[in-house]
Amino acid sequence: MNRVITISRQFGSGGRTIGRQVAAKLGIPCYDNELLEKLAEKSGFTTDYIKERGEYTERGGWLANALSGRAGGGMNNQDHIWIAQRELILDLAKQGSCVIVGRCADYILKDQANCLNVFIHADMAHRAERIVKMYGERPDSPEKRLRDKDKRRKAYYQFYTDTDWGLAENYHISLDSGALGLDKCVELIAGLY
Amino acid sequence: MNRVITISRQFGSGGRTIGRQVAAKLGIPCYDNELLEKLAEKSGFTTDYIKERGEYTERGGWLANALSGRAGGGMNNQDHIWIAQRELILDLAKQGSCVIVGRCADYILKDQANCLNVFIHADMAHRAERIVKMYGERPDSPEKRLRDKDKRRKAYYQFYTDTDWGLAENYHISLDSGALGLDKCVELIAGLY
Repeated sequence: MNRVITISRQFGSGGRTIGRQVAAKLGIPCYDNELLEKLAEKSGFTTDYIKERGEYTERGGWLANALSGRAGGGMNNQDHIWIAQRELILDLAKQGSCVIVGRCADYILKDQANCLNVFIHADMAHRAERIVKMYGERPDSPEKRLRDKDKRRKAYYQFYTDTDWGLAENYHISLDSGALGLDKCVELIAGLY
Repeated sequence: MNRVITISRQFGSGGRTIGRQVAAKLGIPCYDNELLEKLAEKSGFTTDYIKERGEYTERGGWLANALSGRAGGGMNNQDHIWIAQRELILDLAKQGSCVIVGRCADYILKDQANCLNVFIHADMAHRAERIVKMYGERPDSPEKRLRDKDKRRKAYYQFYTDTDWGLAENYHISLDSGALGLDKCVELIAGLY
């Protein structure tokens, strides 16, 4: 059976980098931006449009968004993206062993594949330093950007999966990349595979 | 500086066994029941009385308990135990490197010691099997016993630490002992020390 490593992560924790390095070490593909491109093909939306809407609630709060977008009882664009994303992730897991970063893959593949579900987190200071290094300064402070991202990712996860994001019991292993370092995280995850 | 491994764990996850084995492997003491005995000496309460009250809210719900016990604005027995427990854990961490199982040691030693904070959890099925093997059958089903313990331990932690119990971000590493096995958990934790 194919084995899939799903990596959920806090924004700025280096989860994506860890995912890529684990995949390289194990010689299996890592789906992250590739997933966005496939999803764009499949759904007809652009990658830019999908990038945020496949992991975050829209700005303005999920409730306002949910109510406005679904006032007629139908599906909004985010729901369509969710469905396309779900099918794509199930397909990828069938095709072969891989690493999938983000996009609720842990939930989508529950009982569908032989998964190792990983959660990567780090404290505010480590993440703030990392996002400024990776994405540069912005008008908002890095802490504000992180709190906003955390809140919207959490709300997205909760809305579509009906479980809490970031609870240790939802993952086989959760690691503090700030305290342990990225290389140690890569070593631990690859060692468990 | 002394290094302390704190092990928080879901009831029935084998966290205590893991703690003992990690300590044996590293040649450092593990405080668990020893802590209870020291605490009994220090506080004047019996170990049986302390055992539950140092980690769980009283039956009847923490709110009812908190309100009734603190109606006069004073401290109840559980508060006195909390304070003695806190002092004892700070003392132990100063004396030398060790493993401490449970009792909010992760929170108590925050910024006070060089800690590796670990959370051990497992799914219902693994934990139910384990508690029946360890503690035997009871009138209540193992699942009911687990849900009750989880709820009261969570409430206790939240009341005294004002943070959520079981959130991945509160620990350096969280492990699913059911999926990974106890030996693997011991190996990973000892390896990180």
